[in-house]
Amino acid sequence: MLCVALPASAQQPAAKASSSELIAASKPSDWRAMDAENALYLDLPHGRVVIELAPAFAPKHVDNIKALVREKYFDGLFVIRSHDNYVAQWGDPDEKNSRAVKQAKTKLAPEFSVKFKDPKDMPPFARLPDADGYAPEVGHSNGFPSARDPKTGEAWLTHCYGMVGVGRGNEDDSGSGMSLYAVTGHAPRHLDRNITLVGRVVHGIQHLSALPRGSAALGFYDKPEQRVPIKSARIVADVPAADRTNIEIIRTDTPLFASLVESLRNRPGPWFKRPAGHIELCNVNIATRVAPAAGK
Amino acid sequence: MLCVALPASAQQPAAKASSSELIAASKPSDWRAMDAENALYLDLPHGRVVIELAPAFAPKHVDNIKALVREKYFDGLFVIRSHDNYVAQWGDPDEKNSRAVKQAKTKLAPEFSVKFKDPKDMPPFARLPDADGYAPEVGHSNGFPSARDPKTGEAWLTHCYGMVGVGRGNEDDSGSGMSLYAVTGHAPRHLDRNITLVGRVVHGIQHLSALPRGSAALGFYDKPEQRVPIKSARIVADVPAADRTNIEIIRTDTPLFASLVESLRNRPGPWFKRPAGHIELCNVNIATRVAPAAGK
Repeated sequence: MLCVALPASAQQPAAKASSSELIAASKPSDWRAMDAENALYLDLPHGRVVIELAPAFAPKHVDNIKALVREKYFDGLFVIRSHDNYVAQWGDPDEKNSRAVKQAKTKLAPEFSVKFKDPKDMPPFARLPDADGYAPEVGHSNGFPSARDPKTGEAWLTHCYGMVGVGRGNEDDSGSGMSLYAVTGHAPRHLDRNITLVGRVVHGIQHLSALPRGSAALGFYDKPEQRVPIKSARIVADVPAADRTNIEIIRTDTPLFASLVESLRNRPGPWFKRPAGHIELCNVNIATRVAPAAGK
Repeated sequence: MLCVALPASAQQPAAKASSSELIAASKPSDWRAMDAENALYLDLPHGRVVIELAPAFAPKHVDNIKALVREKYFDGLFVIRSHDNYVAQWGDPDEKNSRAVKQAKTKLAPEFSVKFKDPKDMPPFARLPDADGYAPEVGHSNGFPSARDPKTGEAWLTHCYGMVGVGRGNEDDSGSGMSLYAVTGHAPRHLDRNITLVGRVVHGIQHLSALPRGSAALGFYDKPEQRVPIKSARIVADVPAADRTNIEIIRTDTPLFASLVESLRNRPGPWFKRPAGHIELCNVNIATRVAPAAGK
């Protein structure tokens, strides 16, 4: 990107309301539920991680992950890696002799981006006006941080905190969803379009981000007893209503969301003395809340 | 910043060597020791956190923190906050009845930036050519991520992962160093020039970043037993040689460092398929290594 600095005098006015004030004043229509068919629970001994999947960006990988979850591939496997300021990763610790797969595929063509002949077919996009160094356009697509290149018709998910991707080897078709990672550090945006992203942790990220770091290379746990067992992975649609964590996510296609972004771009006082005049894609918090479980 | 996207065809060539290959080929002169008078150890029950201070950017706060450390202000206090994707913070859990201070000051004028009439007096700066949304110029100053505005003569440290700052209340002179935080999540750059940064965790960040998250508002620990006691804080110059952790930090004013940055901007294969053509300030890793202790 070629950039021209604004004059130093162009300090922005602060937003009128803070993001917490805006959230407090939100209406039910500012929130949405997840599609239970495209969301999963990763239940760890210390808590539940809720992941929303993004079939619009990685349809084949999402299908395969759902097949793996439904054949209980992950149950009894482990979080095998906690790499400080980077990722937590889960799957089979013994990749070379990994657990047998039944219906799911073990290799998939990459879905680093999706491409559309007609821009009108591209996923919905609330574009940020703010500059980004890694992509021509960035913004949110139904709650997922993402980028677009209108010249090529490509759209892709971006490696912000909490995003979930598919581990792979050197071959670009060597991933399948049998090994997954979540970003637990500063956004490694250089991974964008180099590896397939499939969704986002929308609740319980601390059960992955606060794990002890692995001391082997790349943050892998070098002793089997350090690995964190996966009690179960389940597609939300398969979980009885009483056992669900009813997540609601702020909609990103509303006037409220535009106001929230502005409140983060130019934070109001009294604590803030100098509005930033800018918001970086991965600094946009996508608010979530937990509704009471059905019948409770 | 007003930015113009480069043509989509302008994909960059990959660097010739990876950063780990470049580090492996480094010479002793590519590394530097810390100034023992401007570095401190925060010894926690589970390990040592090493912080390098930046007197060029916050001279009065650095002096005051050294005074606090030397009068053992922090010994026996606690890490009181672990806010997921944001900060860990340490100090006195009871701010209103806080431990008495002897020589150090309890309030200081802010040092959100330093200002120079003559640009030649500004701290050294290895500028990144890459665009940044938050500042006219970004780069590294003796290992610290920082920014400059050549029009106003200001320079300031930036809130990248691991940076250490001075907690304050709503008044901009309400901080003193009695409460400190380290960034443990995606860079909260909107804090830049709103709060005084004083240094960077150069070793042992995992002893802060992997702490269990606090469940009270803003990630504070709500039960006293959750707090992590500080065994001691010491200025490195006051620590016997045999007890020191001899950190060496990659120099940021060398041809090697420029090559390292390029290797991160356009990562070589075989794993990487698409060089990013960009490096964001807080994605530049500043390599450190631990030399054997004296006499060992």
